[in-house]
Amino acid sequence: MTRPRATIVVTGSELVRGERQDRNGPFLAAEALRLGLEPERITIVGDRPEDLERAFADGFDADLCLVSGGLGPTHDDRTIELVARVAGRELVVDHALEREIEAVSQMIADRLQRPYAEFVTGVRKQATLPAGALSLGLAGTAPGVVLESDGCVVVVLPGPPRELRRLWPRALESDPVRRVLERAPDRGRRTLRFFGTPESAVARALEDAGGDGDGVEATICAREFEIHVDLVVEPDAEARADVLVERLRGALGRYLFSEDERSIAEIVLDLCRSRSLTLATAESCTGGLVAARLTSVPGSSDAFRGSVVAYADEIKESELGVARSVLEEHGAVSAQAAQEMAAGVRKRLGADVSVAVTGVAGPGGATVEKPVGLVFLHASGPSGEEARRIDLPGDREMVRGRATAAALHLVRRLLTQNRDEGA
Amino acid sequence: MTRPRATIVVTGSELVRGERQDRNGPFLAAEALRLGLEPERITIVGDRPEDLERAFADGFDADLCLVSGGLGPTHDDRTIELVARVAGRELVVDHALEREIEAVSQMIADRLQRPYAEFVTGVRKQATLPAGALSLGLAGTAPGVVLESDGCVVVVLPGPPRELRRLWPRALESDPVRRVLERAPDRGRRTLRFFGTPESAVARALEDAGGDGDGVEATICAREFEIHVDLVVEPDAEARADVLVERLRGALGRYLFSEDERSIAEIVLDLCRSRSLTLATAESCTGGLVAARLTSVPGSSDAFRGSVVAYADEIKESELGVARSVLEEHGAVSAQAAQEMAAGVRKRLGADVSVAVTGVAGPGGATVEKPVGLVFLHASGPSGEEARRIDLPGDREMVRGRATAAALHLVRRLLTQNRDEGA
Repeated sequence: MTRPRATIVVTGSELVRGERQDRNGPFLAAEALRLGLEPERITIVGDRPEDLERAFADGFDADLCLVSGGLGPTHDDRTIELVARVAGRELVVDHALEREIEAVSQMIADRLQRPYAEFVTGVRKQATLPAGALSLGLAGTAPGVVLESDGCVVVVLPGPPRELRRLWPRALESDPVRRVLERAPDRGRRTLRFFGTPESAVARALEDAGGDGDGVEATICAREFEIHVDLVVEPDAEARADVLVERLRGALGRYLFSEDERSIAEIVLDLCRSRSLTLATAESCTGGLVAARLTSVPGSSDAFRGSVVAYADEIKESELGVARSVLEEHGAVSAQAAQEMAAGVRKRLGADVSVAVTGVAGPGGATVEKPVGLVFLHASGPSGEEARRIDLPGDREMVRGRATAAALHLVRRLLTQNRDEGA
Repeated sequence: MTRPRATIVVTGSELVRGERQDRNGPFLAAEALRLGLEPERITIVGDRPEDLERAFADGFDADLCLVSGGLGPTHDDRTIELVARVAGRELVVDHALEREIEAVSQMIADRLQRPYAEFVTGVRKQATLPAGALSLGLAGTAPGVVLESDGCVVVVLPGPPRELRRLWPRALESDPVRRVLERAPDRGRRTLRFFGTPESAVARALEDAGGDGDGVEATICAREFEIHVDLVVEPDAEARADVLVERLRGALGRYLFSEDERSIAEIVLDLCRSRSLTLATAESCTGGLVAARLTSVPGSSDAFRGSVVAYADEIKESELGVARSVLEEHGAVSAQAAQEMAAGVRKRLGADVSVAVTGVAGPGGATVEKPVGLVFLHASGPSGEEARRIDLPGDREMVRGRATAAALHLVRRLLTQNRDEGA
């Protein structure tokens, strides 16, 4: 069965130059996949007409082409003009839309204390659409647009991710897009997430379990210390997927920590919440990253009390009660320091559970005995303690990121008493 | 003058499905730009042969095509095969390379305690290159490769970003790539970074200053509260660029905070270091993000002492000395609370300078008087105090990110006594 094919064209000179990371491409691709389409290609181009024309001509060779960017009021914004050209349509001013954009621009003019005359050309331009196109309304000053080009439904959305995500649901409700989605039967999704075993072992277990194919497509992705197996399941292959999942559980059960999409921070907070436990972190090399990840989850205040980032050694002493003798004898990067940091923050912040991280993030600060990447973790709670020493590869960013993930997984293991191996 | 055109093809099913954000595309595009090439297009595809073939055929229509991913040992790794097909080359086993990969695989086999027999097919595959291609050596088990296809120099690199970045310098030293780079005269780069003025004002100032064109290409990018103007300057247009920069400084000088590529965290740490000042943060809604950003900078320990993330109100009292009467009368999200948090952390952590952030990140926690996005900032130092109330648009992630940037800029303004307007 051939699913409708989706292509994505993201425009923006700062994107094609690598000055900014694109977020719209991954968002639209994941949406296409979720809706049962086959995301085939994401293309990023700048704002040169010849590049846009080429990208659109290539992108329109699909059932659904999702375009973002280049809808602003300036002369550099060429998306609508070139979409129209490739689709063989004239450009027409939509007067009702023009009045709508005028109103928004008038407010902006007032707020910026600029004469409205400066906005007129831009307003007219943004109200100019390919003939026959459907307007999705405004999120900023530019409307989203849907049109058809030679069998391809084209959705054009603004570049700013927030505006794009506001208009996206309206695109899904439009008739042309609905007709494409009707041809895309739902696909099942399964996820299995493992921790403490290498990617190669998971790949091998998947092969032994029967592997890819016959309506089940598997992707294996290593992310910090987690190995994610994601299955996309055609409607008639649910039974096969069940067998695959069962066999993977059998082979790697001790490393399996989740079968849903929750982040490790969400999992940890849910574990605390369901046990009515509060949580605090004591951080050094991670510098607040563990706390930041936990607090990125809405509702984290149910369980999370706070954190002490004790970057300087004196702060480990004064704020966490780490004994000076421990710092002198074992150093700030040691199992003993981690243990005292965990005990100290638990007491000071009145938390039931705590995790401490101390290590050498690099590039500086290393010694022969304590190289870059050496990290000590300690988690402490009502049910006991867990401690780990890990030796991480990579640069500062990688060491900090992985240490953060390892700390969260250590709390998970403390709370579930899951004594699996690994970092 | 036409610069050599560069295209980038990034392969990976988890990328085209939006499950993971691509980092190789932006890295390679920025490198191409830095080296004087014109990055024209970044294309992301999965691992289906027809998609790879199409992407390579399209990508090879350039002077330099940079390819990443799909070099692993499994049957899903099809990059070399399809690069060879599009380039019209046979596939040939490089026996010296095979022995090299064998040695690495043997070590991996030992470490994972697997029989080497499992690796043999993969090793052979990874040692199989397009006839006449140049090997760049190994970073993992797959070699980087350089070959020419009908006037296009093709560089093929492994998918894992760390491996790609290890082999990239070797690609730059290869003869075929050097020949392309010789045709790309150096371009000048300038950057001007503004804070406290909207993007539209910067765009207008740029137009008034003479605008784009005649060898100077300008990109304006809004990033949190900063507006970045980046100029790419052809060799004969330096004088024009100087004039443009001078006029922008004249028009927007009070908002100009940097003319280099340093992040605001680096700028703040440099300011502290040069004044021999230490710094601490007191955070609530940002949950450690300000500390995390500061500590992401190597050498931050010169100036940064630590942070107290006082997520629960009791922690604001117990750890930062915020008076209960303040919390009861004004609430945790108030100018008064921010002031006491800043004073408290300065004292507790023995820092010369501090910044406090308290606000409503959302989606929960809002009231009529204190909606989502309301944030109070307070910076405190030897030279005085700075306080701000800001009302941020957006969701939790956006509010936290922007509050973090605003906090760092507030410290900058405190230390430079730059009394510009804005958030």
